[in-house]
Amino acid sequence: MNSFGRLFRIHIFGESHGESAGLVIDGCPAGLPLSVEDFLTDIERRKGGNHKGTTPRKEDDLPIFKSGIFNGHTTGAPITILFENKNTRSGDYEKQRAVPRPGHADFTAHAKYGGFEDFRGGGHFSGRLTVCMVAAGVIAKKLLGHIQVVSTILEIGGEADLEKGLQKAIDAKDSIGGIVECRVNGLPVGLGEHFFDSAESLISHAVFAIPAVKGIEFGAGFAAARMFGTEHNDAIEDASGKTRTNHAGGIVGGITNGNELVFRIAIKPTSSTPKEQQTWNWETNAIESFSVKGRHDLCIALRVPVVLEAVTAFTLVDLMLLEQRIGRIGPSFML
Amino acid sequence: MNSFGRLFRIHIFGESHGESAGLVIDGCPAGLPLSVEDFLTDIERRKGGNHKGTTPRKEDDLPIFKSGIFNGHTTGAPITILFENKNTRSGDYEKQRAVPRPGHADFTAHAKYGGFEDFRGGGHFSGRLTVCMVAAGVIAKKLLGHIQVVSTILEIGGEADLEKGLQKAIDAKDSIGGIVECRVNGLPVGLGEHFFDSAESLISHAVFAIPAVKGIEFGAGFAAARMFGTEHNDAIEDASGKTRTNHAGGIVGGITNGNELVFRIAIKPTSSTPKEQQTWNWETNAIESFSVKGRHDLCIALRVPVVLEAVTAFTLVDLMLLEQRIGRIGPSFML
Amino acid sequence: MNSFGRLFRIHIFGESHGESAGLVIDGCPAGLPLSVEDFLTDIERRKGGNHKGTTPRKEDDLPIFKSGIFNGHTTGAPITILFENKNTRSGDYEKQRAVPRPGHADFTAHAKYGGFEDFRGGGHFSGRLTVCMVAAGVIAKKLLGHIQVVSTILEIGGEADLEKGLQKAIDAKDSIGGIVECRVNGLPVGLGEHFFDSAESLISHAVFAIPAVKGIEFGAGFAAARMFGTEHNDAIEDASGKTRTNHAGGIVGGITNGNELVFRIAIKPTSSTPKEQQTWNWETNAIESFSVKGRHDLCIALRVPVVLEAVTAFTLVDLMLLEQRIGRIGPSFML
Amino acid sequence: MNSFGRLFRIHIFGESHGESAGLVIDGCPAGLPLSVEDFLTDIERRKGGNHKGTTPRKEDDLPIFKSGIFNGHTTGAPITILFENKNTRSGDYEKQRAVPRPGHADFTAHAKYGGFEDFRGGGHFSGRLTVCMVAAGVIAKKLLGHIQVVSTILEIGGEADLEKGLQKAIDAKDSIGGIVECRVNGLPVGLGEHFFDSAESLISHAVFAIPAVKGIEFGAGFAAARMFGTEHNDAIEDASGKTRTNHAGGIVGGITNGNELVFRIAIKPTSSTPKEQQTWNWETNAIESFSVKGRHDLCIALRVPVVLEAVTAFTLVDLMLLEQRIGRIGPSFML
Repeated sequence: MNSFGRLFRIHIFGESHGESAGLVIDGCPAGLPLSVEDFLTDIERRKGGNHKGTTPRKEDDLPIFKSGIFNGHTTGAPITILFENKNTRSGDYEKQRAVPRPGHADFTAHAKYGGFEDFRGGGHFSGRLTVCMVAAGVIAKKLLGHIQVVSTILEIGGEADLEKGLQKAIDAKDSIGGIVECRVNGLPVGLGEHFFDSAESLISHAVFAIPAVKGIEFGAGFAAARMFGTEHNDAIEDASGKTRTNHAGGIVGGITNGNELVFRIAIKPTSSTPKEQQTWNWETNAIESFSVKGRHDLCIALRVPVVLEAVTAFTLVDLMLLEQRIGRIGPSFML
Repeated sequence: MNSFGRLFRIHIFGESHGESAGLVIDGCPAGLPLSVEDFLTDIERRKGGNHKGTTPRKEDDLPIFKSGIFNGHTTGAPITILFENKNTRSGDYEKQRAVPRPGHADFTAHAKYGGFEDFRGGGHFSGRLTVCMVAAGVIAKKLLGHIQVVSTILEIGGEADLEKGLQKAIDAKDSIGGIVECRVNGLPVGLGEHFFDSAESLISHAVFAIPAVKGIEFGAGFAAARMFGTEHNDAIEDASGKTRTNHAGGIVGGITNGNELVFRIAIKPTSSTPKEQQTWNWETNAIESFSVKGRHDLCIALRVPVVLEAVTAFTLVDLMLLEQRIGRIGPSFML
Repeated sequence: MNSFGRLFRIHIFGESHGESAGLVIDGCPAGLPLSVEDFLTDIERRKGGNHKGTTPRKEDDLPIFKSGIFNGHTTGAPITILFENKNTRSGDYEKQRAVPRPGHADFTAHAKYGGFEDFRGGGHFSGRLTVCMVAAGVIAKKLLGHIQVVSTILEIGGEADLEKGLQKAIDAKDSIGGIVECRVNGLPVGLGEHFFDSAESLISHAVFAIPAVKGIEFGAGFAAARMFGTEHNDAIEDASGKTRTNHAGGIVGGITNGNELVFRIAIKPTSSTPKEQQTWNWETNAIESFSVKGRHDLCIALRVPVVLEAVTAFTLVDLMLLEQRIGRIGPSFML
Repeated sequence: MNSFGRLFRIHIFGESHGESAGLVIDGCPAGLPLSVEDFLTDIERRKGGNHKGTTPRKEDDLPIFKSGIFNGHTTGAPITILFENKNTRSGDYEKQRAVPRPGHADFTAHAKYGGFEDFRGGGHFSGRLTVCMVAAGVIAKKLLGHIQVVSTILEIGGEADLEKGLQKAIDAKDSIGGIVECRVNGLPVGLGEHFFDSAESLISHAVFAIPAVKGIEFGAGFAAARMFGTEHNDAIEDASGKTRTNHAGGIVGGITNGNELVFRIAIKPTSSTPKEQQTWNWETNAIESFSVKGRHDLCIALRVPVVLEAVTAFTLVDLMLLEQRIGRIGPSFML
């Protein structure tokens, strides 16, 4: 299912080179002011156009409101937003159909859907659909009010100096990965539950919906595995739950503890790379060399921060609604 | 909610020092042979009793079947299994109530449940409930038939030599963390969906339900962030989808690709440590030193492999049922 | 939430006088042939245009495929279909805003959504959205193959002669209700579960989503309350489960028994009626007389059969998928 | 799945002649006082022991708390309650196994679960599990506070004089059905949503989980199908939404309107009847006469009111939580 959330429920749909991509949000409180302008900054951020290393494809991705918005406010009914696809060049992709691209969903989608999958540009299995996540994130961030969700790139190709990392990829004529961090300030104590609905469970569930993510760690994360207990434990300092250190990353026992939420994700290198690769050919049943044509990012991680903010924000809105920290009607969502 | 799964649904309940811990499984196919003996090995593995560094508490955790099993087979109706709590010493914990232990859920549970939470030994917020996960895992592993789910400890306190890692903790009189890996062989191509129900999303959702997990990575994981695309991409070699390398860890585009599923998790050091720590006292509103009394593991990671196998197994059963790879009735679950 | 189904999941959205109405279907098997032509008959049936007593509004409701369909077949990805709204006359409704129409959702929607609801023509709370149900039904009926779902009107205004019933309404210049029956032949034994997921529970859940339904009964229904056990019990006659009578309506213990599924629903009279009524005015806080202007059906029951077939069909597809009676891939959905 | 509810989630399990029947409630707010005594009245009502026509089986059904209750209050963790089975006489049933009893789930359960179902006394497919619903109802009614849920029997065997109806059954040596009504006072405006989560959809979903229910109608129900619009529409009289009449039964557009919630259900005659019946024999493949031995109610409808109150109450608690009309923590559930 392409759905996520219990009370603030996101459904995404669409294809890279089909009619459109879009989303339906069920459970958004009524009375939130919403306009096309609210989306422009984050949609622009997702294009990653200011960086070298991102694809020049211009999508002019204006959100088209199809339901749930009236007189500039959400109505409480399902919100539907479409992004139409323009300027697509399917020809780039069709000739490669017999060759499942390594690192792409070509092979798995074909096996799962018996050849009926839309294979143009990855079809449904495309980073194109992250624009839907970003749109949901815009709405979620408005609902979160003063709670700030901020993602930044920590490193590209192992380099904290991002320009240096990108230059490495350009020099090698190869794609490259990166690490992105997300920090959230202003969260109340008490979001999430122990075990299956832990805050970590829900956030990681949403985060692994972003294509190319291969790892996540909260707080000290993998480094915690090498610490002693007295090093790792965060001493509580007052009645608000404030801790001296924050190795837990703001979640203890699956529940937010009122400190900064901190986690990092690993982004693999873009699967499409200008460099020659080998793969097996469905028609000839032989291994062959090929190289990916078309417009592709050298480093998809550059586009990830706004998507990561988005999935984090809508997961948190759901957790806030479950804890009744956001009202269901009218201006009560102002926290 | 303490539930997980769409078609093979696990519910866990109970407290560390209450009446019992237990589970209900909804959606288990009828006709699976099941006896108390099936559970003994995994329950014993969870106790971690053979290692130094695990708690000496003897639980004699025999599963008590309360529903859903008849004439030694599952009936298709909900399966309920209880584990009774014996040999508990609540006194160890009650006197510490005013002192929320760092790294434990004491503070967050109190804030969330308004002081009504069962605070004895962590109450519901206790590793005790992992016995319920293990029990569900026993059933799930039987359903998986020849698909092998195997977890191993990769390192303890940064040491691949586990004895050495444990000795480090014993010498420091402090607790310590570790890294655990899970590998699954024999999975079909096609489990999981793109985006929100990706195999990574569902597995990580389940895995972060295990207390003390702070990170997860699939295949190359965080190392992928430092690789070039041509290094990371796994070249497909034949019609079965077999790849030359396995940096993807067996999942591409959120869907299993028929190769070995591989992922690793980071376990933080046990929160309870014999060493003195500082925390804030609810009653005195002052920071004070304290040390945790009672029986505790120095390294909870030692108990994790069987729990990790369990949550992985029941997540995979759910994915297999969704893809109709396991029949709903009778002996057809034999794959 | 405007969603229904566990594996074949329907989401509907839209407003009567907004941009559009539409639906997303998640979980439709790949490989089902689908064209605009498949929808025309049922969409036409929903208009009820051949009967006197239905509104003359012409909607030209052509489905617009926005995702999930490629080369004339479903792809396995979410299917999105839009119906654009044309020829709406909002002016008819706006002047009545202060007057919550009796029998309509005007009052309850206002109370629930704090005045942010789209009030034009009922907004989201409109029979307009049944076109989305009908579209989902078209797809579901194709998936059901030889299983026939057929709804017929049993009576209008208490008359089995429908013309007579309608004439009664026309003469009285008032709206009128009716009773609609649904019969399904060809169902396998074993759909549904005891208790909360009984076939009756799921069907009635879906059926009460149709506006104006106020009752449902299966088989002998309310008449069963006046029968003796030996009268009501259906004697089983052979190994297929065929019964001599069918007072159970094809469901025993919440599970289909292989006989014809039979149930009836009660449709209240159209809330909008040309006759003068009384209601309370929000602005004046006084009770006043008013009459509904605009185009309205005298008997909404005339449009219900195709909607009832639709919700029944998609509920049954979900039940069939849960029992693995429909394959997930390719032509295997051909039963 | 034997689960119901989105935020206040009920899971039931067990068998008629197995170890036990029981339930898990997930999502119950913390801080509700709860003792065994709270359950006694409703459990006694369910036995129907004061009426002639109910089975003499004495169950002494004391609830055994297994989790989620501490110091006499709910803790916010899952609540598990067991009812142990005693005084069962399986021998009564085993000899009849080859003969699927008409009106029972014997045939459908066998077909669905391939012969692995527990067939003793109906096994999982037994009215025995309604004790679990009743227990959930006790908790739900406490949460509803001053909102009163009251069910009464309207008729037995077509007689409003219940003694007369029962005597009819006793004279005929046959079982008999009945009609039960439920009325709820004090509900706020705004529970339920249009379409798939309408209050009618959710209530009917829960109600058809009660064995033997074959119909439900809200307000005027089936009679509405024969009314004119001006007759049926309930004129709104003031800002609270109070209506002059209540043909809608307290729900308009799927949403509660603040008036009394009223609905009725049809209960078929008890399937087990002392009178001789015919059915087909699995072993001989011939039709034969048989009569049901053992202890059975002549009129199961007599036991239904308390079960109907229960499922109504827990459905309403879920709707109240969704609308944030019940707080998640501490004494705030006092409305």
